[in-house]
Amino acid sequence: MQIGVDYYPEHWDESMWETDIKLMKETGVKIVRVAEFAWSRLEPEEGRFDFAWLDRALDLFHKYGIQIVIGTPTATPPRWLTTAYPDVLPVFADGGVFHPGVRGHRCYNSVSLRKYGSRIIEALARHYSSHPAVIGWQTDNEFSMLDCHCDSCNLAFRSWVQEKYGTTEQVNEEWGTVVWSGEYSSWDELTVPYGGSPFQNPSMLLDFQRFQWEAAIAFQKTQTEVLRAICPQHFITHNFHSYPQRLDMHGLAEDLDVASFDYYPNPSPQKQATAPYSGALSLDLTRGIKRRNFWIMEQLSGPPGCWFPMWRTPYPGLIRAYSWQAIARGADTVVHFRWRSAAAGAEQFWHGLIDHSNVPGRRFAEFAQLCSEVNGLAPLLEGTGVISQAAILYSHEQMAALRIQPQADGLDYYENIKQYHRALTRLGIGCDVIGWRQPLEGYKLVIAPSLYLHDEAAAQLLEDFAAGGGTVILTSRSGVKNMNNICVMQPLPGLFSRAAGVTVEEYDPVGGDVHSLRSPDGILYECSQWCDILRPEGAEPVAWYADDFFAGAPAVTVNSFGAGRVYYIGTHAEESYWLKLLGDIAPDAGLTLFPELPDGVQAFTRTGPKGELLFLLNLSRTSQTVGLDKQYRSALTGTPISGPVELAAYGVEILETQG
Amino acid sequence: MQIGVDYYPEHWDESMWETDIKLMKETGVKIVRVAEFAWSRLEPEEGRFDFAWLDRALDLFHKYGIQIVIGTPTATPPRWLTTAYPDVLPVFADGGVFHPGVRGHRCYNSVSLRKYGSRIIEALARHYSSHPAVIGWQTDNEFSMLDCHCDSCNLAFRSWVQEKYGTTEQVNEEWGTVVWSGEYSSWDELTVPYGGSPFQNPSMLLDFQRFQWEAAIAFQKTQTEVLRAICPQHFITHNFHSYPQRLDMHGLAEDLDVASFDYYPNPSPQKQATAPYSGALSLDLTRGIKRRNFWIMEQLSGPPGCWFPMWRTPYPGLIRAYSWQAIARGADTVVHFRWRSAAAGAEQFWHGLIDHSNVPGRRFAEFAQLCSEVNGLAPLLEGTGVISQAAILYSHEQMAALRIQPQADGLDYYENIKQYHRALTRLGIGCDVIGWRQPLEGYKLVIAPSLYLHDEAAAQLLEDFAAGGGTVILTSRSGVKNMNNICVMQPLPGLFSRAAGVTVEEYDPVGGDVHSLRSPDGILYECSQWCDILRPEGAEPVAWYADDFFAGAPAVTVNSFGAGRVYYIGTHAEESYWLKLLGDIAPDAGLTLFPELPDGVQAFTRTGPKGELLFLLNLSRTSQTVGLDKQYRSALTGTPISGPVELAAYGVEILETQG
Amino acid sequence: MQIGVDYYPEHWDESMWETDIKLMKETGVKIVRVAEFAWSRLEPEEGRFDFAWLDRALDLFHKYGIQIVIGTPTATPPRWLTTAYPDVLPVFADGGVFHPGVRGHRCYNSVSLRKYGSRIIEALARHYSSHPAVIGWQTDNEFSMLDCHCDSCNLAFRSWVQEKYGTTEQVNEEWGTVVWSGEYSSWDELTVPYGGSPFQNPSMLLDFQRFQWEAAIAFQKTQTEVLRAICPQHFITHNFHSYPQRLDMHGLAEDLDVASFDYYPNPSPQKQATAPYSGALSLDLTRGIKRRNFWIMEQLSGPPGCWFPMWRTPYPGLIRAYSWQAIARGADTVVHFRWRSAAAGAEQFWHGLIDHSNVPGRRFAEFAQLCSEVNGLAPLLEGTGVISQAAILYSHEQMAALRIQPQADGLDYYENIKQYHRALTRLGIGCDVIGWRQPLEGYKLVIAPSLYLHDEAAAQLLEDFAAGGGTVILTSRSGVKNMNNICVMQPLPGLFSRAAGVTVEEYDPVGGDVHSLRSPDGILYECSQWCDILRPEGAEPVAWYADDFFAGAPAVTVNSFGAGRVYYIGTHAEESYWLKLLGDIAPDAGLTLFPELPDGVQAFTRTGPKGELLFLLNLSRTSQTVGLDKQYRSALTGTPISGPVELAAYGVEILETQG
Repeated sequence: MQIGVDYYPEHWDESMWETDIKLMKETGVKIVRVAEFAWSRLEPEEGRFDFAWLDRALDLFHKYGIQIVIGTPTATPPRWLTTAYPDVLPVFADGGVFHPGVRGHRCYNSVSLRKYGSRIIEALARHYSSHPAVIGWQTDNEFSMLDCHCDSCNLAFRSWVQEKYGTTEQVNEEWGTVVWSGEYSSWDELTVPYGGSPFQNPSMLLDFQRFQWEAAIAFQKTQTEVLRAICPQHFITHNFHSYPQRLDMHGLAEDLDVASFDYYPNPSPQKQATAPYSGALSLDLTRGIKRRNFWIMEQLSGPPGCWFPMWRTPYPGLIRAYSWQAIARGADTVVHFRWRSAAAGAEQFWHGLIDHSNVPGRRFAEFAQLCSEVNGLAPLLEGTGVISQAAILYSHEQMAALRIQPQADGLDYYENIKQYHRALTRLGIGCDVIGWRQPLEGYKLVIAPSLYLHDEAAAQLLEDFAAGGGTVILTSRSGVKNMNNICVMQPLPGLFSRAAGVTVEEYDPVGGDVHSLRSPDGILYECSQWCDILRPEGAEPVAWYADDFFAGAPAVTVNSFGAGRVYYIGTHAEESYWLKLLGDIAPDAGLTLFPELPDGVQAFTRTGPKGELLFLLNLSRTSQTVGLDKQYRSALTGTPISGPVELAAYGVEILETQG
Repeated sequence: MQIGVDYYPEHWDESMWETDIKLMKETGVKIVRVAEFAWSRLEPEEGRFDFAWLDRALDLFHKYGIQIVIGTPTATPPRWLTTAYPDVLPVFADGGVFHPGVRGHRCYNSVSLRKYGSRIIEALARHYSSHPAVIGWQTDNEFSMLDCHCDSCNLAFRSWVQEKYGTTEQVNEEWGTVVWSGEYSSWDELTVPYGGSPFQNPSMLLDFQRFQWEAAIAFQKTQTEVLRAICPQHFITHNFHSYPQRLDMHGLAEDLDVASFDYYPNPSPQKQATAPYSGALSLDLTRGIKRRNFWIMEQLSGPPGCWFPMWRTPYPGLIRAYSWQAIARGADTVVHFRWRSAAAGAEQFWHGLIDHSNVPGRRFAEFAQLCSEVNGLAPLLEGTGVISQAAILYSHEQMAALRIQPQADGLDYYENIKQYHRALTRLGIGCDVIGWRQPLEGYKLVIAPSLYLHDEAAAQLLEDFAAGGGTVILTSRSGVKNMNNICVMQPLPGLFSRAAGVTVEEYDPVGGDVHSLRSPDGILYECSQWCDILRPEGAEPVAWYADDFFAGAPAVTVNSFGAGRVYYIGTHAEESYWLKLLGDIAPDAGLTLFPELPDGVQAFTRTGPKGELLFLLNLSRTSQTVGLDKQYRSALTGTPISGPVELAAYGVEILETQG
Repeated sequence: MQIGVDYYPEHWDESMWETDIKLMKETGVKIVRVAEFAWSRLEPEEGRFDFAWLDRALDLFHKYGIQIVIGTPTATPPRWLTTAYPDVLPVFADGGVFHPGVRGHRCYNSVSLRKYGSRIIEALARHYSSHPAVIGWQTDNEFSMLDCHCDSCNLAFRSWVQEKYGTTEQVNEEWGTVVWSGEYSSWDELTVPYGGSPFQNPSMLLDFQRFQWEAAIAFQKTQTEVLRAICPQHFITHNFHSYPQRLDMHGLAEDLDVASFDYYPNPSPQKQATAPYSGALSLDLTRGIKRRNFWIMEQLSGPPGCWFPMWRTPYPGLIRAYSWQAIARGADTVVHFRWRSAAAGAEQFWHGLIDHSNVPGRRFAEFAQLCSEVNGLAPLLEGTGVISQAAILYSHEQMAALRIQPQADGLDYYENIKQYHRALTRLGIGCDVIGWRQPLEGYKLVIAPSLYLHDEAAAQLLEDFAAGGGTVILTSRSGVKNMNNICVMQPLPGLFSRAAGVTVEEYDPVGGDVHSLRSPDGILYECSQWCDILRPEGAEPVAWYADDFFAGAPAVTVNSFGAGRVYYIGTHAEESYWLKLLGDIAPDAGLTLFPELPDGVQAFTRTGPKGELLFLLNLSRTSQTVGLDKQYRSALTGTPISGPVELAAYGVEILETQG
């Protein structure tokens, strides 16, 4: 359990290094990430490596007892590389080139990128495998989806399709290309989807996304293979950022030891009602990537900005509180971006802990307090982790398919997940966010939003879970398609009908039109986006539509399935309905709630061999009072605490169960 | 008079065909359109035709007594064609290629498209000219404007201009290219308008539109010539869609036997106040294309969607009511799109009558009722048509010119026509919407919105009509330009001043600023977009501006001209002013109104040798009551009806005059 | 002092010329601009010049005693030139070509443009150097920034950078390209910034702007050198338009005798509260370009329009009043665009004084009155100019840098200047708007908004001014960067701290969030965009923040510096705060105010050897009453005037001090 910073020795005059590192040491910094953008300094010209400057920096870090994670520099290919090997550069759908001089200007399928990327990583790995300060590696930086249309991608996509389907006849069959005479009669005709026309074949579009997801994984594998071979004692991570990403994060993480996240909650007062909750989801999602604790590789340290108007500066306490939120939800290391704001280049106003003036100020003082607290609590936190009763199933494939064909105005896969997750968080129900095909042992409740693409395995997974006593919540737009993005010829929700005991008689894509549903106690709730008119076939209705031509028709049903229960929610109900439903479900499902959490306060527990640590985080600008049901002791102050505890604005309390 | 469906045998396993066709037969379907997107199946590789599968399908249709319209498949060139002959593909203004894999990816001027298109049409025509089920052809599918910038278009445009003007000197003169030194000194310099700069010469831009309109006509002619030669006994149509289209629909229809329309009224409750009226305009406009009854080739059957969020599902009764609206306004056949929702491809969520589940539901039941009603009333409807007292003059050239140089914020040619047409519809005045150079015999009232481009023939046409006793309504932005899009050096409204007896002293493009005008009874009405300050020269003012520096100046005038009258409305008055004005005009002009039609209810009459059929259509979600002035008999139920008749939501009544 | 019109003999049949010119003469027109778009007529094919038609036109003008300014025609290269030498055409960031057939389609760095441009200018200069009507030249037309990416620009930019920095090592150092491995290892790698990615190096982007600014200057110099050599007796001007322009107007004007401006105030009633004030700023800015009187080369004559919906027509009196506003603020000639609206081409609806009908109307009558008034007052105005007590420092470099990296939502360099200038105008404080490095002698108050880029010279200039007794107002975002767009490592406001006696402890980019500040009398004012939390180091606070975590912290300070004072305003305060602050500052700073000017009325003074002329301009649609403090005589009517004077809508009064 430690705090770190991101530092760029190459950005600062060497005379400043030791002063900086000494101050890090004094402040309590334990870990530093370096070099992820330094290719042009590490290999100033083709084949000439220069690690001397980094040696000097790393030796200084080692002198002060600070450990190092090295980022592989492939996110910023140097100009000599892109000039000599322009196939490194991605190509947009309209044929335009993604020019160098920025970052991320590299196609994952580029032969030259792979060749020269592997070469410098191998050189770095050999050079630093036994450096005493180095403990691990970060692959590339913030992978993102490129949708590249270069010639390499074109050929690679063709091979990928060929490998998957064998013949053009099979492609035509699986993708349904007969529609609009899109049939391939020879492999030459198969290309990446140029031009971004909205009319393209959705099965092809989904496979193209899969191809690009796999390209990122394959590209990363060229790095991890080298690193594993040469530095078996080092860990490997990657820093994901700002979800939702169009990435197969689970697939990428299979080759990693630990997942990392770059966490930049928006400090605007206008975002106070949403940022703490979407941040909580991001953290739970990161923890779910490898279903274990994770790192923050970049944590908010000041106002971001540069190519957009700067955000607000973090309110006093915000930097500390959000760092503790990350730890509460499973971060074992929090690395702050960045030590000092850049004086030059495109990121000058993505502020670090110290301003351009190099005069440490309010934010730095708060960071120092955090370091001190974390270092003090590290022994207590050591070996603790997160155990959740509930899980939300997340799928980059569902998200992609639902974006290829938007279902209804306002129906957004990830935004809907945000709402379900926020309802759980407001109720104090800890929740994992895991891959949609992951084993479900240990959970009591599984929310499976819009399993739009599906197959027998997906249906079986949920049936087994419910049969064993679990509670499942399904939502509308489930069981619509097979995995090829082709509609299935059976009543909705497809194979999930078996467990849900319900079919969809008809639906109305109501979009932004607000409709209402009625719970058994007669209370009306707003719903929108979509209305499935349900026909129970074994299930029982637990809410009914209250207007339009389908007034009185079932909107929500529950089905007993084995020892468990399966809910089907045929519409997008407002959050208060979810709060009510989850509150109703909780006792039977055996879920523990944290009653009456004030708005903006989050409660989360880390559990270890020595017991539980309850984190109470007030992620708002006003003080809040939280009721406690038993005796605690503050791990921060040692004071015994019971009864209502008041949390100042951005106040944090960490409670050990007393006795 | 019949109901049909669009069916794609190539999309479904052959084992399903007979079940589907049998159900069509039982439901009352009489006609089916096939094959308009099936090029890749009809000619799987260059020169190899495969009609066997379509033979089997058509034989089955024939077995069940269903008639067939074949669509020529040129809207979806297959991949082997675009790969081997890339000149088939259109080129955008920025040089980007319109890539294949979608639909509409074909340049009308492409030599290869014309060659290979004609070849497959000829093969199809020879093969099916004597098939007992086939009765007609649809050319291509939903022509639309391409504004193609390919090399073929470049050469063809140059020839077109050369043919029209003879010399570059003449082009320079007619287009006024001296402005900004845009003069052509050699033909090589003349190209299509690349790049979409807003600064281009408006005369050239208008001629480029004309060139593209004619390209579509010429391309269609390559098809109709083949079909007429080989299948003289078959009719030919084309399915226009979603007006306004930037097309010369009248020119295209000269080569057709009947015009068709693809009718997708938006079922959203938010569109209830507009969709039934803009739909009525679309139908009247389609009827005006050939000034005779028409077909609906695609009629709304469920929620559209796919590349945009799905629309609402049709409310109970909506599918039937809008089909009857189409029939009321002159449709003789209504073909529903489509039998069953596509399982694959880009149109999966453009719903058909039957859902993906293949379980017929509420919408199908309503369709079945419609089939039964239409089949029952077919004898009564046979030979009936529409006779209108009023006409609105429509011109794709005016629309194009007014878009090239937007006159004022909010001034939209087609939106303004919608408003005038809605006023007529709300008053129950049946109206044709015809080409602006069409003969006007038989009408009592002609509304000629913004005849911005004009010539002596246009002025003469209206003068002759007025002289003969007709009433003409002209609006602002009339007589501004000659047909070359050049401003004329005479007071506005140019040549129309003669008939209108008024000139424009000055104008103010008020745009979105709301101004007011006062009628003789002192009532104020809002006006916007444009204010012509009128100087009567023979005409009499009938409304005056009520504010700004031109308060008190005439805004609307009427001039006696021969036996008729010519109104000039110098501003865009709100709809209530049009209702008042038309109500005032009606008695003198001899127009029949339907008094006090409730909002959302439309009344329209088809007339035949056996008398009149009055259609009352409640195109709203609430029930409405309509007063009747005489005794009727319901053609649907046989019941005598008089006095107020109540129409349920989406209720339809068809009334025969009693006795 | 004279009134003119823009006239295009080449647009009209030669038979109309003398009628037009005779009417000009009768109306009082003294000056006409011609030929700035006539290249295709002056050189119909490469190397063949035809000046005969222009000779005939100019002889006619001379016959009627009208003087001529000739525009060099380089803004509209003819088609034969762009066809034969396509390097004339600019290239966009995405590689697309700026096609001909419009205007402005020429790259300033194009070798062919420079060659053929110089050639025709030389021919024109030789031909007209001794024509008795010709008195001067306008270079090109409305220079604007092209951001061209053609090969010429690529090479020229590389040379420019090479010249500035010498080695790639130095470029890397000065631009900080080490960030993201953007280092150049060879000159070949250095290109113009393709593709418009938001991530590019801000130092490079700023230098690219400088390069393009200098390209325009260098291009103009190719023209002025020819003209000076051949027509030494003629003056040279250029017509700038619609600020802010991304141009170095001061640099361009170094080669000019007089600056001109194209003045199109928006006549919409909705713009009444802003257009007269932003117009005043434009005029003061134009006067500041050469710090002397200027010309209006195009003045509003009717509704503009064409490629956008037309604006409102000028309200009665507006054309005259805005012409007088231009004169009041230093225009010595006002040329109206244009004599008659174009009948053809892209500018048909950019209306002239006479409509297409060629019937002179209300606007022409008003213009005639203006001519008569100006001709009458010319002797009185002769030799008068503007003497200001206050100056605002303007910098195209600051604006460019602040756009490259937007600082906060709503923080717009020029919009902020508008606000400060409007406060001065509403207080009746005459103000120059001058280049930010200009000498400051003679001013009492200097407002220096956001001197974001800075160096020692900039700091010294203000220190000297303050030391000598001047009052300086600095605002937030000053002293942030060096001239290379690199952040400086010292507390804000950098070198300006010395004079301001204050540093910025921390800042909050509040953007659109509204905050408040409190003046010593306890009144609250709104502030937004940015909040510097100030630490006085010698200065005294004069306003404090009233909310958020920095409530109570100083927001505005004043520092005594030598004999003067330096204000630092750490936030963007609403206009009423500026009115109060300036009102407070005025007595000490020795500024003269015009008390209680009504909204929409502007007061401005021209001073000459014979005394002062006070212009009172009511630039609104309602009549206004202005109090006067002494006896005046109306220069327009000769009447003595004292006490409150009433100005009708768009009323103008010009007052000589009585006795």
